[in-house]
Amino acid sequence: MPRWQAGVTVMLKPVVNDPQGLAVESGLRQLGYGGVSNVRVGKYIELALVAEDEADARTKIEEMCDKLLANPVIEDYAYVVDEAYGDTDAEDDELDSEAW
Amino acid sequence: MPRWQAGVTVMLKPVVNDPQGLAVESGLRQLGYGGVSNVRVGKYIELALVAEDEADARTKIEEMCDKLLANPVIEDYAYVVDEAYGDTDAEDDELDSEAW
Repeated sequence: MPRWQAGVTVMLKPVVNDPQGLAVESGLRQLGYGGVSNVRVGKYIELALVAEDEADARTKIEEMCDKLLANPVIEDYAYVVDEAYGDTDAEDDELDSEAW
Repeated sequence: MPRWQAGVTVMLKPVVNDPQGLAVESGLRQLGYGGVSNVRVGKYIELALVAEDEADARTKIEEMCDKLLANPVIEDYAYVVDEAYGDTDAEDDELDSEAW
Protein backbone atom coordinates (compact mmCIF):
# COMPACT_ATOMS: atom_id res chain seq x y z
CA MET A 1 0.00 0.00 0.00
CA PRO A 2 1.25 3.51 -0.72
CA ARG A 3 2.59 5.71 2.03
CA TRP A 4 1.17 9.13 2.79
CA GLN A 5 2.59 12.13 4.55
CA ALA A 6 0.17 14.22 6.60
CA GLY A 7 0.40 17.54 8.40
CA VAL A 8 -2.32 18.19 10.97
CA THR A 9 -2.95 21.59 12.56
CA VAL A 10 -4.94 21.61 15.78
CA MET A 11 -6.17 24.94 17.14
CA LEU A 12 -8.43 25.89 20.00
CA LYS A 13 -11.85 26.94 18.69
CA PRO A 14 -12.18 30.70 18.26
CA VAL A 15 -14.65 30.90 21.17
CA VAL A 16 -12.21 29.19 23.56
CA ASN A 17 -9.87 31.39 25.57
CA ASP A 18 -6.21 30.83 24.63
CA PRO A 19 -3.93 31.78 27.53
CA GLN A 20 -0.83 30.56 25.70
CA GLY A 21 -1.63 32.86 22.79
CA LEU A 22 -2.20 35.77 25.17
CA ALA A 23 1.17 35.09 26.83
CA VAL A 24 2.96 35.00 23.46
CA GLU A 25 1.21 38.22 22.40
CA SER A 26 2.24 39.91 25.63
CA GLY A 27 5.83 38.71 25.14
CA LEU A 28 5.95 40.03 21.59
CA ARG A 29 4.61 43.41 22.69
CA GLN A 30 7.25 43.60 25.41
CA LEU A 31 9.87 42.94 22.73
CA GLY A 32 8.60 46.00 20.86
CA TYR A 33 6.21 44.42 18.35
CA GLY A 34 3.25 46.62 19.18
CA GLY A 35 1.45 45.88 15.91
CA VAL A 36 0.88 42.24 16.81
CA SER A 37 -2.60 40.99 17.67
CA ASN A 38 -4.86 37.93 17.59
CA VAL A 39 -2.10 35.51 18.56
CA ARG A 40 -3.33 31.92 18.85
CA VAL A 41 -1.11 28.96 19.64
CA GLY A 42 -1.93 25.46 18.48
CA LYS A 43 -0.26 22.18 17.63
CA TYR A 44 1.22 20.97 14.38
CA ILE A 45 1.57 17.20 13.98
CA GLU A 46 3.48 15.56 11.15
CA LEU A 47 2.99 11.86 10.53
CA ALA A 48 3.45 9.18 7.89
CA LEU A 49 0.83 6.51 7.35
CA VAL A 50 0.02 3.61 5.09
CA ALA A 51 -3.32 3.73 3.27
CA GLU A 52 -4.85 2.25 0.14
CA ASP A 53 -5.70 5.55 -1.49
CA GLU A 54 -6.15 9.21 -0.64
CA ALA A 55 -9.74 8.71 0.55
CA ASP A 56 -8.57 5.97 2.94
CA ALA A 57 -5.74 8.18 4.17
CA ARG A 58 -8.16 11.03 4.82
CA THR A 59 -10.57 8.76 6.68
CA LYS A 60 -7.78 7.46 8.90
CA ILE A 61 -6.41 10.93 9.62
CA GLU A 62 -9.85 12.25 10.55
CA GLU A 63 -10.39 9.27 12.88
CA MET A 64 -7.00 9.85 14.51
CA CYS A 65 -7.86 13.52 15.00
CA ASP A 66 -11.25 12.75 16.53
CA LYS A 67 -9.87 10.03 18.81
CA LEU A 68 -6.46 11.29 19.90
CA LEU A 69 -4.87 14.26 18.16
CA ALA A 70 -7.57 16.83 18.87
CA ASN A 71 -10.22 17.35 21.51
CA PRO A 72 -13.33 17.94 19.37
CA VAL A 73 -15.08 19.75 22.21
CA ILE A 74 -12.65 22.66 22.32
CA GLU A 75 -10.40 22.23 19.27
CA ASP A 76 -10.69 22.39 15.50
CA TYR A 77 -8.30 20.65 13.16
CA ALA A 78 -7.21 20.95 9.56
CA TYR A 79 -4.85 18.75 7.64
CA VAL A 80 -2.89 18.37 4.45
CA VAL A 81 -2.18 14.93 3.03
CA ASP A 82 0.23 14.14 0.25
CA GLU A 83 1.46 10.89 -1.22
CA ALA A 84 4.95 10.23 0.11
CA TYR A 85 7.79 10.18 -2.35
CA GLY A 86 9.53 6.97 -3.25
CA ASP A 87 6.66 4.50 -3.16
CA THR A 88 6.17 2.02 -5.94
CA ASP A 89 2.75 3.07 -7.18
CA ALA A 90 2.98 6.82 -6.84
CA GLU A 91 0.19 8.79 -8.47
CA ASP A 92 0.18 12.54 -8.77
CA ASP A 93 1.51 14.71 -5.98
CA GLU A 94 -1.81 16.33 -5.31
CA LEU A 95 -1.84 18.54 -2.23
CA ASP A 96 -5.16 19.12 -0.56
CA SER A 97 -6.14 20.99 2.51
CA GLU A 98 -9.34 21.18 4.44
CA ALA A 99 -10.42 24.71 5.21
CA TRP A 100 -10.86 25.71 8.83
CA MET B 1 -0.09 50.45 7.20
CA PRO B 2 -1.60 47.24 5.89
CA ARG B 3 -2.33 44.33 8.15
CA TRP B 4 -0.88 40.89 7.58
CA GLN B 5 -1.93 37.47 8.74
CA ALA B 6 0.83 34.98 9.48
CA GLY B 7 0.93 31.28 10.29
CA VAL B 8 4.16 30.04 11.84
CA THR B 9 5.04 26.36 12.22
CA VAL B 10 7.76 25.53 14.74
CA MET B 11 9.17 21.99 14.78
CA LEU B 12 12.02 20.36 16.63
CA LYS B 13 14.98 19.84 14.29
CA PRO B 14 15.07 16.35 12.77
CA VAL B 15 18.15 15.44 14.82
CA VAL B 16 16.43 16.34 18.11
CA ASN B 17 14.57 13.60 19.94
CA ASP B 18 10.82 14.27 20.11
CA PRO B 19 9.29 12.47 23.11
CA GLN B 20 5.88 14.05 22.49
CA GLY B 21 5.88 12.67 18.95
CA LEU B 22 6.89 9.23 20.23
CA ALA B 23 4.06 9.32 22.79
CA VAL B 24 1.51 10.26 20.11
CA GLU B 25 2.84 7.52 17.81
CA SER B 26 2.56 4.97 20.60
CA GLY B 27 -0.98 6.12 21.36
CA LEU B 28 -2.03 5.84 17.71
CA ARG B 29 -0.55 2.34 17.47
CA GLN B 30 -2.47 1.30 20.59
CA LEU B 31 -5.63 2.59 18.92
CA GLY B 32 -4.96 0.22 16.03
CA TYR B 33 -3.21 2.50 13.55
CA GLY B 34 -0.19 0.28 12.99
CA GLY B 35 0.77 1.96 9.73
CA VAL B 36 1.65 5.23 11.41
CA SER B 37 5.29 6.31 11.71
CA ASN B 38 7.54 9.35 11.93
CA VAL B 39 5.20 11.31 14.19
CA ARG B 40 6.58 14.71 15.15
CA VAL B 41 4.72 17.26 17.24
CA GLY B 42 5.37 20.97 16.92
CA LYS B 43 3.64 24.29 17.44
CA TYR B 44 1.48 26.32 15.11
CA ILE B 45 1.17 30.03 15.87
CA GLU B 46 -1.31 32.33 14.15
CA LEU B 47 -0.85 36.07 14.47
CA ALA B 48 -1.86 39.35 12.87
CA LEU B 49 0.66 42.16 12.47
CA VAL B 50 0.99 45.60 10.96
CA ALA B 51 3.80 46.10 8.42
CA GLU B 52 4.57 48.45 5.55
CA ASP B 53 4.87 45.75 2.91
CA GLU B 54 5.38 42.03 2.59
CA ALA B 55 9.17 42.29 2.95
CA ASP B 56 8.71 44.23 6.22
CA ALA B 57 6.19 41.67 7.45
CA ARG B 58 8.59 38.81 6.66
CA THR B 59 11.46 40.56 8.43
CA LYS B 60 9.33 41.11 11.55
CA ILE B 61 8.05 37.53 11.59
CA GLU B 62 11.57 36.12 11.25
CA GLU B 63 12.77 38.35 14.10
CA MET B 64 9.86 37.23 16.28
CA CYS B 65 10.68 33.59 15.52
CA ASP B 66 14.36 34.04 16.33
CA LYS B 67 13.67 35.98 19.53
CA LEU B 68 10.60 34.35 21.04
CA LEU B 69 8.53 31.93 18.99
CA ALA B 70 11.23 29.35 18.29
CA ASN B 71 14.42 28.20 19.94
CA PRO B 72 16.89 28.34 17.03
CA VAL B 73 19.22 25.88 18.76
CA ILE B 74 16.78 22.97 18.64
CA GLU B 75 13.87 24.16 16.48
CA ASP B 76 13.23 25.05 12.84
CA TYR B 77 10.41 27.28 11.74
CA ALA B 78 8.46 27.93 8.57
CA TYR B 79 5.78 30.51 7.96
CA VAL B 80 3.11 31.68 5.59
CA VAL B 81 2.21 35.36 5.38
CA ASP B 82 -0.78 36.82 3.60
CA GLU B 83 -2.20 40.30 3.43
CA ALA B 84 -5.24 40.46 5.69
CA TYR B 85 -8.59 41.13 4.09
CA GLY B 86 -10.34 44.41 4.62
CA ASP B 87 -7.46 46.86 4.69
CA THR B 88 -7.58 50.06 2.70
CA ASP B 89 -4.61 49.51 0.40
CA ALA B 90 -4.90 45.80 -0.27
CA GLU B 91 -2.65 44.46 -2.98
CA ASP B 92 -2.88 40.92 -4.30
CA ASP B 93 -3.58 38.03 -1.97
CA GLU B 94 -0.26 36.38 -2.62
CA LEU B 95 0.42 33.40 -0.39
CA ASP B 96 4.03 32.51 0.17
CA SER B 97 5.67 29.89 2.27
CA GLU B 98 9.24 29.27 3.21
CA ALA B 99 10.34 25.69 2.65
CA TRP B 100 11.68 23.73 5.60
